[in-house]
Amino acid sequence: MQGVREAVAYGGLVELFATPRAAARHPELLDAAGVAGARVSMVTERAAAGLSQTSTPQGLVAVCPVLGVPAGSALRGARLAAVLVGVGEPGNAGTVVRVADAAGAGAVLFAGQTVDPHNGKCVRASAGSLFHLPIVVEPDPRHAVHACREAGLRVLAADGATGRDLDGAADDGTLEAPTAWLFGSEAHGLPRELLAAADGAVAVPLHGRAESLNLAAAAAVCLYASARAHRRRSAAQSPGAIT
Amino acid sequence: MQGVREAVAYGGLVELFATPRAAARHPELLDAAGVAGARVSMVTERAAAGLSQTSTPQGLVAVCPVLGVPAGSALRGARLAAVLVGVGEPGNAGTVVRVADAAGAGAVLFAGQTVDPHNGKCVRASAGSLFHLPIVVEPDPRHAVHACREAGLRVLAADGATGRDLDGAADDGTLEAPTAWLFGSEAHGLPRELLAAADGAVAVPLHGRAESLNLAAAAAVCLYASARAHRRRSAAQSPGAIT
Repeated sequence: MQGVREAVAYGGLVELFATPRAAARHPELLDAAGVAGARVSMVTERAAAGLSQTSTPQGLVAVCPVLGVPAGSALRGARLAAVLVGVGEPGNAGTVVRVADAAGAGAVLFAGQTVDPHNGKCVRASAGSLFHLPIVVEPDPRHAVHACREAGLRVLAADGATGRDLDGAADDGTLEAPTAWLFGSEAHGLPRELLAAADGAVAVPLHGRAESLNLAAAAAVCLYASARAHRRRSAAQSPGAIT
Repeated sequence: MQGVREAVAYGGLVELFATPRAAARHPELLDAAGVAGARVSMVTERAAAGLSQTSTPQGLVAVCPVLGVPAGSALRGARLAAVLVGVGEPGNAGTVVRVADAAGAGAVLFAGQTVDPHNGKCVRASAGSLFHLPIVVEPDPRHAVHACREAGLRVLAADGATGRDLDGAADDGTLEAPTAWLFGSEAHGLPRELLAAADGAVAVPLHGRAESLNLAAAAAVCLYASARAHRRRSAAQSPGAIT
């Protein structure tokens, strides 16, 4: 529902399929879709269920243009980016897109064997954020790292095993630089050659007895640490700043 | 799998049911369960599937003691706690337990109409963390708030709508106090009377166009902001600190 609403609001809608029941429940969405120039088609409950690939369909299915823009244009001017590397679980990938959007990232890159961003579960988990910021699909993760560096971003690998402490990186100013964060899958982490290709590795500290964090939580902590560092730096550089 | 392993490792296991296939695959787990004093029983694949309530059973089902300790003893000495209020989605609740454990929280409270911590999906999402730190079940959320305050914790409501900026709370030292964070459900947030009962409300800033964060990500950002503030304060107070 949120995804359909966002697709309409941000111009990411080509066609909207609605069941009569859903149309009666959300007339404003159908109006907005029409105003936005999208075709609106009525379908049966059964057809909607088939199209939506979910066990609890809501009677609305949005058709959107293919996601994916070139890395160069997506990263232009970005001070923060998230790079998913080999993340196969669509819910995790979509949630990281939502978190990256919230933290103010300029782009998200789906690199290597990462899930297709069009996957329905990924779209739903992103809660519309897939339509908020440029999404790049780059099958070769090394190309993704290269593109980030070309765009002036420092490439930091989020890696619990080999990384230095995130708080330390915040304290010594490392996080103030424009940064692209690399996030691997929960099961496998980041491949060794990509750790070597990054400018550094950082670990979210584990203060308790948990052996790891789930991907979205780790991404949230890392991306928000960067957002905070960027904000403090901007405040310190502004003319009236009290330092 | 991780849950079973943690239950064995942390003494949270009463009985272990295993299929012959799972037993052959994880002999070390069965050994460890026996050493830990748990009864080990062989079952059919069908029985294991029925017991495990999951669509992809792994052939191992652990029986654990009932979770839930009195709030007073759970919170004794805690400098950080997470209070779930009306969180009905078991995966979200379990993930917050995992995040709270990682951030070094001393306890997690399941308050109000929050899911039963024994729910299988909650246990799995916690990745063993339900056995790492005390879990309190308190049907009346006002009692939970009261217990936190009695234990010397400042009660902060995580509330995107009414809260002040988290970074501001970190900058002005608010987060250095021992803190209990209240987290509501993604759909409904925190009830108004509980916002009024808290010592303050704090919002994770939304820098992009996302309308909200998912619960586990918001909890991760809040709890880690507290952990960082506590750590800085300890460092500043230690004899050899350079401030």
